[in-house]
Amino acid sequence: MPPTDRFVSQTTFHIRYAETDAMRIVHHSSYVIYFEEARSDYTRQRGSDYALFERDGLFLAVTEVHARYVKPARYGQQITIHTWIEDLQSRGLVFAYEITHAETGEIHVTGTTKHLCLNLDGKVTRLPDAWRHWADRSMDDKMDKE
Amino acid sequence: MPPTDRFVSQTTFHIRYAETDAMRIVHHSSYVIYFEEARSDYTRQRGSDYALFERDGLFLAVTEVHARYVKPARYGQQITIHTWIEDLQSRGLVFAYEITHAETGEIHVTGTTKHLCLNLDGKVTRLPDAWRHWADRSMDDKMDKE
Amino acid sequence: MPPTDRFVSQTTFHIRYAETDAMRIVHHSSYVIYFEEARSDYTRQRGSDYALFERDGLFLAVTEVHARYVKPARYGQQITIHTWIEDLQSRGLVFAYEITHAETGEIHVTGTTKHLCLNLDGKVTRLPDAWRHWADRSMDDKMDKE
Amino acid sequence: MPPTDRFVSQTTFHIRYAETDAMRIVHHSSYVIYFEEARSDYTRQRGSDYALFERDGLFLAVTEVHARYVKPARYGQQITIHTWIEDLQSRGLVFAYEITHAETGEIHVTGTTKHLCLNLDGKVTRLPDAWRHWADRSMDDKMDKE
Repeated sequence: MPPTDRFVSQTTFHIRYAETDAMRIVHHSSYVIYFEEARSDYTRQRGSDYALFERDGLFLAVTEVHARYVKPARYGQQITIHTWIEDLQSRGLVFAYEITHAETGEIHVTGTTKHLCLNLDGKVTRLPDAWRHWADRSMDDKMDKE
Repeated sequence: MPPTDRFVSQTTFHIRYAETDAMRIVHHSSYVIYFEEARSDYTRQRGSDYALFERDGLFLAVTEVHARYVKPARYGQQITIHTWIEDLQSRGLVFAYEITHAETGEIHVTGTTKHLCLNLDGKVTRLPDAWRHWADRSMDDKMDKE
Repeated sequence: MPPTDRFVSQTTFHIRYAETDAMRIVHHSSYVIYFEEARSDYTRQRGSDYALFERDGLFLAVTEVHARYVKPARYGQQITIHTWIEDLQSRGLVFAYEITHAETGEIHVTGTTKHLCLNLDGKVTRLPDAWRHWADRSMDDKMDKE
Repeated sequence: MPPTDRFVSQTTFHIRYAETDAMRIVHHSSYVIYFEEARSDYTRQRGSDYALFERDGLFLAVTEVHARYVKPARYGQQITIHTWIEDLQSRGLVFAYEITHAETGEIHVTGTTKHLCLNLDGKVTRLPDAWRHWADRSMDDKMDKE
């Protein structure tokens, strides 16, 4: 399901106990945080850093989240998140995610997040050129299969 | 935006400081937890209780979450959540939410969550009759405007 | 256990499902967030507001947290938190908490949090007079038993 | 500050954006979750697994948490957690933690958590021999300095 025509990051980590709920599974809100952490890791893998973005006085506001829950993850396992840029526009972009069991590859959750670029005044603004080129390259580069 | 042809619960509470993030606004994952708390409150207001549901050996698994972020909420304010059942099917249902500023009425976030009824073995199963009738009545009853 | 010689706030709310863990009880980190929410409610009940404190360019940094877990709380119940100022110093203060089952009064968790006043530069600074007097009065006023 | 006479695990990871708050620093409750994740990693590094512990019908209930906050961590950095068993008793144990900036080594937070062994009925019970020996060995083994 992750595309083969662009960069796709892979991020793997353990489920934290605090992320589970009384159904003995990972609470559905935790995956929204996994999406975000996967997004941070994507930018780090691409040689960039969202913390720098903020130091430029810009923010990538989340304007939409969609998650589809296929099979619950549990404490004691690791998850792998494949992350890619699905769409790039002048003032924003869309990230897509696939969260799988790190060993079996079974899909837990898929989803997308939409983002708009805001300046310090909270106004929607164009993505700065450096970031647009960065995103463009990420959508052109083939993923290095490990 | 909340419908007028069925029961709509209203839940109001303060933003917790822990729910904010370094952008000084409520973190987008917090609203998914607000949706859930609003859903719990909806069932309490309808004279039911999700804890009892679980004691019957049944679970309402979340199978989809969609959130649209319009305007950030901040620490120091209260939010009001309008919650209603948007769709009812034999084995599941859809809740819809509108989160507004408790005083100004401005919309912060809207969203929906899809749920399927599972038994202890994790199998999708029909909603028990008592719960179907409960949901049916909730979709027929007009909201009591406070 | 809450003192009778000073103001003690009472805050009652429902456990949220997201706050439980795979042991089917409230996760121990959630009580630290309950402490904070109880502290916010304490200041609101005393006619003050921590959001205003921040608008003055001051912060109450948490420098220590201690929690003792007696009996777990569960989803489906309400908790009541009694909160009071245990100690007041020139540059900080200590809040104390007792979290009980809202109906049975059984103790779930007790704890304390220490705070230091910081200015925008992150320097430890004296509590402003208005806030000192506010805290002083809170330690003099008897609690109004409801 | 970590002892040199026993095994000390090292766990390093990135701060997640969701873990920050409106003071632009890591929210103080997040460190309690870091303690837990460090504890999980400690057991994994010692060739054990808390998930297995639970499959034996046993739980390590947290009975006390103490955290001392020295200097805030921020988004964009990594933290390193040193974790060790500070005390071992027939029915429980105490873990200790030191959370530092992964690059500079500056201390962010130190703390301890106390745990009691519970069975499925919630009764306090002796740590099973296998786990006692496991903890004993961890307190004898010198840390392998990397």
